[in-house]
This record gives sequence, structure tokens and C-alpha cells, in this order.
Amino acid sequence: MTPTRYQQAFILHFGEMGSRWGINRTVGQIYALLYVSESPLNADDITGALGMSRSNVSMGLKELQSWRLVRLRHLPGDRREYFSAPEDIWQILQTLVEERRKREIDPTMSMLRDALMESTVKPSDEYARHRMQDMLDLMELVTGWMNELSDLDRATVVKLMKLGGGVKKLVGVRAKPAASAAS
Amino acid sequence: MTPTRYQQAFILHFGEMGSRWGINRTVGQIYALLYVSESPLNADDITGALGMSRSNVSMGLKELQSWRLVRLRHLPGDRREYFSAPEDIWQILQTLVEERRKREIDPTMSMLRDALMESTVKPSDEYARHRMQDMLDLMELVTGWMNELSDLDRATVVKLMKLGGGVKKLVGVRAKPAASAAS
Repeated sequence: MTPTRYQQAFILHFGEMGSRWGINRTVGQIYALLYVSESPLNADDITGALGMSRSNVSMGLKELQSWRLVRLRHLPGDRREYFSAPEDIWQILQTLVEERRKREIDPTMSMLRDALMESTVKPSDEYARHRMQDMLDLMELVTGWMNELSDLDRATVVKLMKLGGGVKKLVGVRAKPAASAAS
Repeated sequence: MTPTRYQQAFILHFGEMGSRWGINRTVGQIYALLYVSESPLNADDITGALGMSRSNVSMGLKELQSWRLVRLRHLPGDRREYFSAPEDIWQILQTLVEERRKREIDPTMSMLRDALMESTVKPSDEYARHRMQDMLDLMELVTGWMNELSDLDRATVVKLMKLGGGVKKLVGVRAKPAASAAS
């Protein structure tokens, strides 16, 4: 298969953005191709479409599978492995957020927890300790919140997002009855 | 200056995490050093503390300034440039989110907008077009929401985060009066 000119623009863009997203050019291109392909593709299809070496395609597919961004599939009567990107864009977002948290935030949270558990901190380290505590507190608050959001049903999340700044009133409203009762 | 053993663990960890965060080891270490230092440091201080070349330190400081993660300062009676990491951890989070959005999401949103404005899309590109529209819609929803959150006062954001999944009830509550009026 050969990507159309329209698909090509998207594929090249993902290749270029790859380095900013922490993946390499070939991984970005493979993902983009699968994302805009209506049917699952096998490694030969991908090699032909993107003009890269077979081993680059294999490595790229492995990396994308480790991120859970592509799915392995089999077609009836065909022993080759096929790959596709999940249909559901919300599922993709959720996977990305989880995988990035695992790689980019979790290791730092455990490093901070270990350091903060040390009981014998010299006075000269008090400032560093206080800064590390600040960082851990914020990370725990934000990641905890994101976990809870990802457990919510999608309709609630969309409603919340569409509310935007209007959430202030809502969060405030709940506190009002108590406040007026006290006055 | 020499970092204490306690600071050192933090600095080395940030160096190692750098590659996952899309910055290099030296940039990660410089940032970590400034983050746990109570007073602003100049390039000589940093070079001495981290044992890296002066040019690496200069480049690293430039990169951190372009991310708005360190601030340039001057001390009275001293012509050298000093650097510090912002005190306020929420400010740091907000800067990180904005800068990553600018580098990692905005270029893709404008690529998608351009592609979707093309009026002559062949039937064979309909699927790709629909996938790109899905992606753009989600990106606009999420980035718009994050912009609105970052405009809110901190107390509201903390309240919202601490609510966690409890926000479902709140978002639902607002819809109830209309529903019961209709029944």
C-alpha cells in the first residue's frame, strides 16, 4: 500500500514531532500510519508504505506495543500478525496519560518518598527536604486526581471539561449552605 | 559549593530522568541543583557543584530559561548573573504544562486544522479525515479546559482536585432540577 498525499502529510508530521514526544521518527510515522488506516496492517504493509527497513518497523511496533498504543490482531485464514491503533480516541488519551505517568512521574515519586523517609536530616538539608516535600505533595495531589478522573464515566468527564471555569461556581456552591447557616 | 549527600541523590535522579522528560542529563542536574538551593547560584557555583564544563552549564541555563523554569537575577553589588528556580511549586507546574503544550501539542493542532480545512478530500481519505477530526476535537477540548483551569484561583483548583471522583455528584446535581421539572 502507498499512503495518499493526505495521509502522508499526517505521517510526516508525526515523524517530525516524535523527538518532542520522546519517541523516534520511525515510531512516530508507524503510529500515524496505523492511526489513519481503516484496516489493520502487517509489517510488510508498513515497510512498503513508509519505505523503512523491516527491522526498524519491527522495533517500532515493539515500542508502540510496550506503550499499549497499538494492538496485535490476527485475521481469519492469515497467520501473519496485524496491527491497529485503537478506534476510541479517549482510550488512546487515557493510555498515553497512564504510560507517561509510569515512565515520567512514578520513579520520581518513589525517589522522593525514599528521601523523605530518612529520619536523620542535617539542618543544612532542611531547605532541600522542604522543597522535595512540596514536590511530592503536588505530584500526589495531581496524579491522585487524574486517577480518579480516569475512573469516571466519559460523560461526566466531558461535562466537567465543557464547564471549564464554570466549575468554580459549582465547587463554591457546595460550600454555601454551611456558610449561610453559620451567618 | 558542594552539594550535600542528600541534595546529590536528588540531583543525580533528575539527571537520569532527563531523557524521559525530553531534556538532557546536564539540564536535569542543573535544574535539580537550583531547585534545592536556598540562594540563587551563578554559573561558577553550578560548574563547581556539578563538575561539568562551563559551556555545558551555559547551554543548560539557556535551555532552562527558554522553558521559563529558571529565573535570572542580580544581587546587589555583584555584576554576575544569578539563577534560581521559582519558589512556588504551582507556578512551576503551570509553566511546565504551558511549555509542553506549546512544544508538543500546538504544532499538531495547527497541522490538523490545516488538513481539515482542505475542501477537496477524496472518498479514499474520508476515514483519515474523520480520525484527524476526532483527534483535533479531543485536543481542543482538553487544552481549552486546561487553559480555563490555569486561569482559576488556586483554592478552587485544589478543592476540585481533592473532590476527585466526587465531582460526578456535583456535575450531576446541576442537571437535576431540569430533569425533575420535566418528569
